[in-house]
Amino acid sequence: MIRVVLFDTFGTIVDWRSSIAHESEELALSKGLTNFDGDAFARAWRAGYAPGMARVTAGKAPFVSIDFIHRNRLDEILPGFGLAMLDETERAHLNLAWHRLDPWPDSVSGLTRIRSKFMISPLSNGSLMLLATMAKRAGLPWDFIFSSDMHRAFKRNPAVYQNAIRLLHLEPEQIMMAAAHNDDLEAARNEGMQTAYINRPTEYGVDQRADFAATSKWNIIANSVEDLADQLACPAI
Amino acid sequence: MIRVVLFDTFGTIVDWRSSIAHESEELALSKGLTNFDGDAFARAWRAGYAPGMARVTAGKAPFVSIDFIHRNRLDEILPGFGLAMLDETERAHLNLAWHRLDPWPDSVSGLTRIRSKFMISPLSNGSLMLLATMAKRAGLPWDFIFSSDMHRAFKRNPAVYQNAIRLLHLEPEQIMMAAAHNDDLEAARNEGMQTAYINRPTEYGVDQRADFAATSKWNIIANSVEDLADQLACPAI
Repeated sequence: MIRVVLFDTFGTIVDWRSSIAHESEELALSKGLTNFDGDAFARAWRAGYAPGMARVTAGKAPFVSIDFIHRNRLDEILPGFGLAMLDETERAHLNLAWHRLDPWPDSVSGLTRIRSKFMISPLSNGSLMLLATMAKRAGLPWDFIFSSDMHRAFKRNPAVYQNAIRLLHLEPEQIMMAAAHNDDLEAARNEGMQTAYINRPTEYGVDQRADFAATSKWNIIANSVEDLADQLACPAI
Repeated sequence: MIRVVLFDTFGTIVDWRSSIAHESEELALSKGLTNFDGDAFARAWRAGYAPGMARVTAGKAPFVSIDFIHRNRLDEILPGFGLAMLDETERAHLNLAWHRLDPWPDSVSGLTRIRSKFMISPLSNGSLMLLATMAKRAGLPWDFIFSSDMHRAFKRNPAVYQNAIRLLHLEPEQIMMAAAHNDDLEAARNEGMQTAYINRPTEYGVDQRADFAATSKWNIIANSVEDLADQLACPAI
């Protein structure tokens, strides 16, 4: 009965925190910084993500690609981390670190299994080139890609889920939303989709304030993408 | 300098005529028809495609998925081919023959090579599920999928090419449109894209009236997707 499984990406499929920490630490080291805290840098950068999208969702800013929101926040935090010396080319390259995030260890194998039985796609706030570059680099085997640019809205705006349903020409209950964030699933369920919670309690590290566990009776509650593949009865590869 | 190569699909990547002929002939045989002409059926079905889209582009009909245009034309032609007895389930299944088209022999190998160097996607009048199902079945290795549903317009409406450029956040000259149809390339060039003509002079069989050869100085003129891969200096796989 389920035809398509849609996945949140940041936090659910890829581990943005360790990926950004790693890339920023290498850059800081190349600039001679010895006390740079990559984990803190990643969390500080990410802390501008939700507020940047919230301004769009509230109608206080026009829709912009998530790449612009990332860049604005990057420019804000660089001085506090001793990286004010980065020039335009270096900033532009660092901003694309969000296109080069590494998957959690279970993501590629789990997605490959789920893809053998269902259509799979991200339903993410990422931009198209971000999601396509990430997928190509990491080997995420999406059948197609939904990006926020296509919806011109960010989750949890109901328009995102509604537009995905419309584009698929399916009944909402033929679509499952999988995410590590309870509020993402709440928004999907409100539109009639099925839901799968994938627990990622270390996503935000010391900044984690929510999503240590499922907070509702989602259709599936899983500990990894592999576990979701098991519960969806997808064959082993 | 080129980052993304976009491909027309019907006729350029997949051979709709022989695919539809084959599937309709099998169905006709199962219904006891012995004089059924599958090639004529495929061409008659396809003859409703451009007029159906033209009504949308002219503003005489609201945007609808290409699946609906296919279905309307199917219902029109079934009686003339002795298939008026098909029930709703059979018609719905036959309509999805457009989701099951076979690629030309050079398509998968050529696309795989081009994908090793560039991002690749269809820029097609197909619907999302049509293009995703076709790709999964045939092994077309798209990085992502642009469907007409995303643009709510059909080629050669300039809005389609403009929307693709906008979603990619690239300069138009960083994008190449590849197609077997000169007018598709003309529309892409009008928006600043680079162009590649892939010659498919047998696409329409006895109904072919145009596109026997390139009619303009496109950036690349190729005889197959493999030839395009060669001219784009993509490594052998």
